[in-house]
Amino acid sequence: MPDLLAVDAGGTSTRSVVVTAEGRCLGYARTGSGNPISAGPEHAAASVAASAADALAAAGVPGEEIGGVVFAMAGASPHLDVESFTAPLKALGITATPVFESDLLATFFSGTYREAGYALVAGTGAAAIRVEQGRPTATADGLGWLLGDDGSGFYIGHRVVRAALTELDRRGPATALTGLLLDHLGQPGDHAPDPDGRPAIVSYALATLYAIRPVQLAQFAHLAFEAAGDEIADEIVRDAADALLRTLNAVVTPGLSGVITLGGGILTRHRTLADRISARYARDGTIAEVRTVPDGVVGAAVLALRQAGATVDEVVFDRLTTTLAALR
Amino acid sequence: MPDLLAVDAGGTSTRSVVVTAEGRCLGYARTGSGNPISAGPEHAAASVAASAADALAAAGVPGEEIGGVVFAMAGASPHLDVESFTAPLKALGITATPVFESDLLATFFSGTYREAGYALVAGTGAAAIRVEQGRPTATADGLGWLLGDDGSGFYIGHRVVRAALTELDRRGPATALTGLLLDHLGQPGDHAPDPDGRPAIVSYALATLYAIRPVQLAQFAHLAFEAAGDEIADEIVRDAADALLRTLNAVVTPGLSGVITLGGGILTRHRTLADRISARYARDGTIAEVRTVPDGVVGAAVLALRQAGATVDEVVFDRLTTTLAALR
Repeated sequence: MPDLLAVDAGGTSTRSVVVTAEGRCLGYARTGSGNPISAGPEHAAASVAASAADALAAAGVPGEEIGGVVFAMAGASPHLDVESFTAPLKALGITATPVFESDLLATFFSGTYREAGYALVAGTGAAAIRVEQGRPTATADGLGWLLGDDGSGFYIGHRVVRAALTELDRRGPATALTGLLLDHLGQPGDHAPDPDGRPAIVSYALATLYAIRPVQLAQFAHLAFEAAGDEIADEIVRDAADALLRTLNAVVTPGLSGVITLGGGILTRHRTLADRISARYARDGTIAEVRTVPDGVVGAAVLALRQAGATVDEVVFDRLTTTLAALR
Repeated sequence: MPDLLAVDAGGTSTRSVVVTAEGRCLGYARTGSGNPISAGPEHAAASVAASAADALAAAGVPGEEIGGVVFAMAGASPHLDVESFTAPLKALGITATPVFESDLLATFFSGTYREAGYALVAGTGAAAIRVEQGRPTATADGLGWLLGDDGSGFYIGHRVVRAALTELDRRGPATALTGLLLDHLGQPGDHAPDPDGRPAIVSYALATLYAIRPVQLAQFAHLAFEAAGDEIADEIVRDAADALLRTLNAVVTPGLSGVITLGGGILTRHRTLADRISARYARDGTIAEVRTVPDGVVGAAVLALRQAGATVDEVVFDRLTTTLAALR
């Protein structure tokens, strides 16, 4: 059976791995954002193409020998320009037609080879799925920064920025978040005071913050964790955890007890949130085990193996994770 | 003394009036959105040019006889392409250089000829000012839909939409807002069910709502008032009122008791909010009198008269409002 290519295209970075049909990782590569929504479609396609090429080179496997390709990607289905992602594969000599899978499913299978359970992801966005017989059977949230993604990096970063501006604007209480945000924005320099009696620092912060795309406010989420102990920062983190629990609850069903995989920068880097979620379900007994994964690349490989008709059991899964760990 | 032209360029419509130096309104006209941010700069400049031309025609006054022009406009100062608004005036034969004033100040002077007090506006956006000696000396909020505008039409409409999507997504409680929103969005028809187990109605609502610009979510604000009695709708309206009170509080100073003018569609159309704000300050005694105004065109005329060196006292102000009322 020929080798396979698995690509995990995320908002922050794209990871590709070349695996044998027995689950041995031969080559691994990591490039920039492969998410068409957060990086723009052209940049995303270029990242995906580069990471695939690098992984093939690292494996020493020519494109012609790849028998199957899986792309794991957020919001893969509706608006995706499939051609922009498949054309670069042909340039690498790959003739297999890529299969697009949900990034949530790839996150799930990065934590387990079992075919039932749950995944909760909180990175720039936030969403949860229920998995049965290896497929997603329920999805909650993942509605994007404007209309959903409750508890996500955007949700937290947006509230951090608004809390700081509320203090600077004299509309709300003092918070440690204000100083932390201003440290990030840099000094206003000779920013002219507003003629209408608005504090000059507010006009400066607005000009800086409106210059980035809204979704990039997620970059300020970590300030809420840095300011732990501050009343307003703690409230934001508590509200985010509550929101993520509601999202997970929306897909949890009493009849299905299984592994839950937690993924995304907010859950993997900030243990306070992940611990609260684990504790809630440990008490309840719905969830047999909680696993935290750094990304979806192992799961993308699991999906590629299953797609090719291979069996992924505990032995193959362990081989995947250990041989990949040796390459990273 | 020659006649004057006053233009109130708002997010929903633009109003122009031609007045004599004694405050008698000779011609009035109303066109579409004149706000460069919400309508785009070209559309805004065209609306302003059309309303000015129509007001001159209604007054029977040639542009050459206009001795002064005031434009009242949101966010007038920083990023405005002044030339796009002044060039059409020259085409009308107007040689006077227009003076740009804050829309908040025009709202204030639509309610009073006195030179001290406060204005609170909640339309698509939300902001408050303190006025002393006829000029704004403090401004709070008005930071735009992404970073501020707490309690505004966007703030309310955004929360309405999120509450409905939270119910549809099975993450939150039932609310009357969901049915009202779906009535607005129309029937999903043969919208394909999502393969990942997401309710089809959620995918349909997302596709419809992401097709409009974010700021246009303000159009759903009225649903919160329609659903009065619904727990979630009432919470949104209560939070909006609290936010607007905080914004007003940020500019109120104990030493300055004066008139407060309330403006913008949220405050003028939905009395529950305006009444709560009035009641709060009536108890407190900081505010001598509360006046609600439909727009800023009277205030733009007050500013044009003062700019031209005319005195605006109670007699002139009454003449302005009564002669304008006869033209509308």
